[in-house]
Amino acid sequence: MFSTLGTVFKVTTFGESHCAGVGVVVDGCPSRLPLVEADIQHQLDRRRPGQSRLSTDRNEADSVVILSGTENGLTLGSPIGLLVLNKDQRPTDYASMRQVPRPSHADYTYQIKYGIRAASGGGRSSARETIARVAAGAVAEKLLRERFGMEIVAWVGAVGDVDAPDVDLLTVDRAGVDRFDVRCPHAESAERMMAEIARVKAAKDSLGGVVVCVCRNVPAGLGEPVFGKTEALLAQAMLSIPATKGFEIGSGFSGARMLGSRHNDPFVAKDGRLGTLTNRSGGVQGGITNGEPIVFRVAFKPPATIGRAQETVDFDGAPVTLEAGGRHDPCVVPRAVGGRHDPCVVPRAVPIVESMAALVLADLALIQSIRC
Amino acid sequence: MFSTLGTVFKVTTFGESHCAGVGVVVDGCPSRLPLVEADIQHQLDRRRPGQSRLSTDRNEADSVVILSGTENGLTLGSPIGLLVLNKDQRPTDYASMRQVPRPSHADYTYQIKYGIRAASGGGRSSARETIARVAAGAVAEKLLRERFGMEIVAWVGAVGDVDAPDVDLLTVDRAGVDRFDVRCPHAESAERMMAEIARVKAAKDSLGGVVVCVCRNVPAGLGEPVFGKTEALLAQAMLSIPATKGFEIGSGFSGARMLGSRHNDPFVAKDGRLGTLTNRSGGVQGGITNGEPIVFRVAFKPPATIGRAQETVDFDGAPVTLEAGGRHDPCVVPRAVGGRHDPCVVPRAVPIVESMAALVLADLALIQSIRC
Amino acid sequence: MFSTLGTVFKVTTFGESHCAGVGVVVDGCPSRLPLVEADIQHQLDRRRPGQSRLSTDRNEADSVVILSGTENGLTLGSPIGLLVLNKDQRPTDYASMRQVPRPSHADYTYQIKYGIRAASGGGRSSARETIARVAAGAVAEKLLRERFGMEIVAWVGAVGDVDAPDVDLLTVDRAGVDRFDVRCPHAESAERMMAEIARVKAAKDSLGGVVVCVCRNVPAGLGEPVFGKTEALLAQAMLSIPATKGFEIGSGFSGARMLGSRHNDPFVAKDGRLGTLTNRSGGVQGGITNGEPIVFRVAFKPPATIGRAQETVDFDGAPVTLEAGGRHDPCVVPRAVGGRHDPCVVPRAVPIVESMAALVLADLALIQSIRC
Amino acid sequence: MFSTLGTVFKVTTFGESHCAGVGVVVDGCPSRLPLVEADIQHQLDRRRPGQSRLSTDRNEADSVVILSGTENGLTLGSPIGLLVLNKDQRPTDYASMRQVPRPSHADYTYQIKYGIRAASGGGRSSARETIARVAAGAVAEKLLRERFGMEIVAWVGAVGDVDAPDVDLLTVDRAGVDRFDVRCPHAESAERMMAEIARVKAAKDSLGGVVVCVCRNVPAGLGEPVFGKTEALLAQAMLSIPATKGFEIGSGFSGARMLGSRHNDPFVAKDGRLGTLTNRSGGVQGGITNGEPIVFRVAFKPPATIGRAQETVDFDGAPVTLEAGGRHDPCVVPRAVGGRHDPCVVPRAVPIVESMAALVLADLALIQSIRC
Repeated sequence: MFSTLGTVFKVTTFGESHCAGVGVVVDGCPSRLPLVEADIQHQLDRRRPGQSRLSTDRNEADSVVILSGTENGLTLGSPIGLLVLNKDQRPTDYASMRQVPRPSHADYTYQIKYGIRAASGGGRSSARETIARVAAGAVAEKLLRERFGMEIVAWVGAVGDVDAPDVDLLTVDRAGVDRFDVRCPHAESAERMMAEIARVKAAKDSLGGVVVCVCRNVPAGLGEPVFGKTEALLAQAMLSIPATKGFEIGSGFSGARMLGSRHNDPFVAKDGRLGTLTNRSGGVQGGITNGEPIVFRVAFKPPATIGRAQETVDFDGAPVTLEAGGRHDPCVVPRAVGGRHDPCVVPRAVPIVESMAALVLADLALIQSIRC
Repeated sequence: MFSTLGTVFKVTTFGESHCAGVGVVVDGCPSRLPLVEADIQHQLDRRRPGQSRLSTDRNEADSVVILSGTENGLTLGSPIGLLVLNKDQRPTDYASMRQVPRPSHADYTYQIKYGIRAASGGGRSSARETIARVAAGAVAEKLLRERFGMEIVAWVGAVGDVDAPDVDLLTVDRAGVDRFDVRCPHAESAERMMAEIARVKAAKDSLGGVVVCVCRNVPAGLGEPVFGKTEALLAQAMLSIPATKGFEIGSGFSGARMLGSRHNDPFVAKDGRLGTLTNRSGGVQGGITNGEPIVFRVAFKPPATIGRAQETVDFDGAPVTLEAGGRHDPCVVPRAVGGRHDPCVVPRAVPIVESMAALVLADLALIQSIRC
Repeated sequence: MFSTLGTVFKVTTFGESHCAGVGVVVDGCPSRLPLVEADIQHQLDRRRPGQSRLSTDRNEADSVVILSGTENGLTLGSPIGLLVLNKDQRPTDYASMRQVPRPSHADYTYQIKYGIRAASGGGRSSARETIARVAAGAVAEKLLRERFGMEIVAWVGAVGDVDAPDVDLLTVDRAGVDRFDVRCPHAESAERMMAEIARVKAAKDSLGGVVVCVCRNVPAGLGEPVFGKTEALLAQAMLSIPATKGFEIGSGFSGARMLGSRHNDPFVAKDGRLGTLTNRSGGVQGGITNGEPIVFRVAFKPPATIGRAQETVDFDGAPVTLEAGGRHDPCVVPRAVGGRHDPCVVPRAVPIVESMAALVLADLALIQSIRC
Repeated sequence: MFSTLGTVFKVTTFGESHCAGVGVVVDGCPSRLPLVEADIQHQLDRRRPGQSRLSTDRNEADSVVILSGTENGLTLGSPIGLLVLNKDQRPTDYASMRQVPRPSHADYTYQIKYGIRAASGGGRSSARETIARVAAGAVAEKLLRERFGMEIVAWVGAVGDVDAPDVDLLTVDRAGVDRFDVRCPHAESAERMMAEIARVKAAKDSLGGVVVCVCRNVPAGLGEPVFGKTEALLAQAMLSIPATKGFEIGSGFSGARMLGSRHNDPFVAKDGRLGTLTNRSGGVQGGITNGEPIVFRVAFKPPATIGRAQETVDFDGAPVTLEAGGRHDPCVVPRAVGGRHDPCVVPRAVPIVESMAALVLADLALIQSIRC
């Protein structure tokens, strides 16, 4: 259950790591929107593994096909079916891990939940599932850009202990973000982050980080009171991304330390509308957008798959040393963690965060467009 | 829209600050659960303003009535209607604020969204709306306790810059939490928090804080892959509470700074099941509960309503000094912020956080109970 | 579950026959719609028992109160809570029927489903639940009338074997429908229907019938392909009304006997748009409204509660003669069917059918209003 | 919108007549259900055009591929993606009909709704869309059969004016139904129906009919009060099938003519449970199944596509004679109705009706399985 997100702009995803393909159905996209595969492929390419030295070697084309919902490059108003075939499956890489649930992976919880799990890789908990989100998000972004003029840009704000300074929220763009493999637009920080990732990779370890996202030109009035507050839906969307552990909007956790007199955003007149002098609210007040940029941050834990030896137990509770190519124990699972994995996922998470933000905003924008 | 939350255990709330009443319909609660008003009233009393010197003077009984769905103290399986009448309305307190949108309140965004807003108070953005959540949450908690043995306990982990040390997640209970008005179970921290609140109150200012919550005896297997991950639904639920700015589960934002080798939770055998040695995951892996306690934290900003003077503009963009009882400007709105408000909401937020957690877990537990 | 209907204009009902009250939450109604209790009360009065000699003697005021969602007679955009208290409960009338499931009532199925049932009356299967539908439907109708100019009129087309001739779909109105207690606008048929009802009532029996409904000024383009076809949602809405056994739109079952050349509705130019010469489609093509009147018919079975003796069994399978005031058997349940019930429900079903149609069309009209 | 059906067993369809393919995502199917393509293909073959002399010549293999959700022939609990590629598209057949909306087709309503429509064929209103329903329905049927022991059998009960007599609801099976191309299990009626279809086909006309369906071994207790009544969801499901005009359950429209004393189903003891002597209720009471067979009937209008000349207007309102290969008017659209279409769709509708019934019952059965 819960493979569907959204009320009006509604996406339903399917596919796991090693089946025939991963896809999504986008229902509720307005008609007559120009849409071709290239509109979607660009973000898939940014998400794709094997783009740089920083990420896994698993190199898949991840080419998307539009199965339905468009004709002559225009949407018909009918559901848009998108499919990316899984070309490079290598299930044997994973065969041996069947008896040992990898620490901080979903092997154990899936087994308990379903009484079965995909033999190869993490099933629906695999990062490969995010292909569907990015494909759908690209459609949402096209809609937001063409019909509402909105822009969404995410970047890496921290890797491990390396924090980038704040960037200019009004000018940061994807070209600047993509200038470095690590997708941090601040050059000096980017260099330090990449060095840190290289160091950790060499140590067969992994590293977490933070993705920051800004949504610009968001009209005031989006978001629905109570359970559909903009920040509530963004939080759900972001915490649904694999490996996320936290979400904060505007002042976030640091706002909890401020006095009200400092935290409040005074109103000012801006171009014939009301704006705010500061933006600790992060673009939302009472759950509804106020016309200022939406700014939020997402915490990603370090990837659970590491090459270093780990002491754990198998499904029967017997102690096991889990290690890539290890030889320390007869129970050892030699290639259990020998798959192709990133030491740090945040650079590739950037387009995923953008996509999830786009899905939320497309839904809220269409809902707010209801007129009578 | 979006006044409904949940798929199987489904709640729909209604009511704003100064209408006839606030209520909720709980649909999908199993039959034959013992349920009387007292089961619900207790948490409403903990949420109620006027409980202590720390909170607003607005004293309302907030007595709940069960309108439907039970007979002879047992649920029938039909929707449970719950209603709390608004007894103390004082709309005149708010009459004068109509022309000035209060900074960091929802006056402006509601006006833009709906072209109208409740004249008195913040409409659906008022904290009074949370009565419905707490009432519904109490039903959910009863279900979780009686049918699943689960326990949910929240407390204040920080007020402004006063951070309480970690508490024992396995033993902290509501009696301990309620020992101090500020609802922090750590005595020394509680004293310091209360002193800080008193100081800020005297300065006509306000203060944010952090609520921590633990859910114990949660069976492994709850949560739905992709968009219904336990942490995703908790994040939505928490960020839907007024004044929240952040959510983190397990290691949270600090997890983004750890190495994988340190962050991973090794499995160990525990009472015939697998458990984990550490719990940086916060009780979830791949979005699905693993049987360990769920632990999360929620950041609350300082309340926007303060007595100190604020420079802002009115709906027409003209400068205004907003001050309780102020006299500095002919445009001033004397009682605009003279309402009854808390300098720090986190103590009263504790039962709200517990209630929202209960709503999420009740839904997920019923979904996971589907058998065939 | 399933106490909620609609996607954008969303109603959630609660309440059963003998609890404190019956109510509904209407979420998604646009703001600034004029709405006061009187707008709702009128249809509730038409639904109310005890209006005429034809219906039950149970006389309840059924006064509706708006609990939330309006201020100064205008909707705020927030959920509208509506409540009708149950004043006349007489649970003792039903006390004795606890051990015998009444034939063709829901006593048995509710008991099996929930392991419990409301001791008095039929719980959620009671006709009293329809109060909530009519209250919500009145809000929907107000919206459809004020914002879209739509009109909905239903009437009794048949009672038992008495069929009224077709009426003029363009002019039939509620005044004409209400001219006779039986709510058939054709005078001669109305007289015959009333005579038939009186005859059957004297025989302690009951009678079914058919309600016909027309929706006028429906814009072309409402309805959503595949599962949200206008006729599909109307069919669900109508078959959700107690005692209904069938639904047909346009040509309906008789259309199954026609040749395509006779059934097809040729297009013609009408006032600058395309219309159809005939309307066997009933106002929909491919599930989407075509601008012609929507016409449908709903079959109601005879009420299951009759005064005549019935041979049946109790919950343990033991034979019982069920009779109002009967004395034939020691097992007999004297007042089991001594409640206050109609010999024919179709006159009172007229506003219920109108209300359900309004709920469906309000939802589809708002959905179609989505623009970007 | 509305391409998704169901709450727990949830299907989302995509695809139109002439795009790359038609497919469906089945979310919420329990894990460990044996499922391979052959389980699905059988019903697709029964739906497929070109099976017999009775149906269109459009011969497509309609081979289904399972894209996700299974491994080693067992479901994983993750969404099941199913795809059928469109092999035989012939868009040129339809090219000429762009300027003339075919009478009683959806060309006009889609154009008005979306401001665009699929150039070739009827887009989502095409019968080809039902492939997705049948594929998903086959999964639902497998679940119902394996886990609940339910059986669903539909057949043709009438073609035009040829009515088949009632069949034995307890023994009718698919082998008996498929004995004749027309899918009526009563031999003599089948012969007459086939003769009638041949006659009408020769006259370049089309014919409607009725499909009857029985669901056996349905446990008591399925269906949700108020808006989720079994008959309400079945009615929605059936009226969502293209070309349907009516639905009736149990006594249906004829029940509206009966007296209550005749219509009521007395209870009797049956194998340790309560059953009913008659089954005018059609297996449901108060919207909840009572353990008796569910029996319902669906009316299908004659297909709108006929070879005979039709006087209509084009999109601009100008008169046109629409005829297959006709030459009567310079405005004529020669091949506008020269596509490959059935003179009578009811034989092919049989598996569609079964599939939609299976989708509804699978959802209700899973919902009722919720335990705590």
